[in-house]
Amino acid sequence: MAMSESGVPEELQRLRGSIDNLDAAIVHIMAERFKITKRVGQLKAAQGLPAADPNRERQQIARLRALAHDAGLDPEFAEKLLSFIVSEVVRHHLQIAGRDSGPSRDPDA
Amino acid sequence: MAMSESGVPEELQRLRGSIDNLDAAIVHIMAERFKITKRVGQLKAAQGLPAADPNRERQQIARLRALAHDAGLDPEFAEKLLSFIVSEVVRHHLQIAGRDSGPSRDPDA
Repeated sequence: MAMSESGVPEELQRLRGSIDNLDAAIVHIMAERFKITKRVGQLKAAQGLPAADPNRERQQIARLRALAHDAGLDPEFAEKLLSFIVSEVVRHHLQIAGRDSGPSRDPDA
Repeated sequence: MAMSESGVPEELQRLRGSIDNLDAAIVHIMAERFKITKRVGQLKAAQGLPAADPNRERQQIARLRALAHDAGLDPEFAEKLLSFIVSEVVRHHLQIAGRDSGPSRDPDA
């Protein structure tokens, strides 16, 4: 197998370059997503809207699972990823609302 | 504030549409990323390469934190997100390698 100067197989080095490109895309999309959820948090706090909306959350989960399935991504992973992001968004929303307790889930995540 | 027929403020509905678009992008990027890490897992298993590469991992974390900082995303969140994804990749790699134990971290995540 062809090796690069660093002793890493060339194919592995190439694959790592692709991973790095995709990770950069994910970081930038996440940055944009948190800008939007920050605005959602401000809007909800200003309007006194509840943080949680179970219907919206169910729709998000079902949609992401279907998209994941069609794209060949494990739907379970997609749902876990959404939960992971949501937990960070809830943390932000609670900071915006100045509360230190509240619903553990927020659908606008 | 303007309300849509569903009783959701129009701005919130618009923001949710943007969140949905970004989530679809994330799902598709993740699907591509796991295709690549699956190939990495196969390559490492075939070549008997170690799953963990601390140097690569340090580089990935430092790079993602810097990208996150520049994009206005919390670098801590970016690092946590990478760890979250890595744990899923490691699970895949262990399945590919047919092992049920091994390093808890794999940099090609």
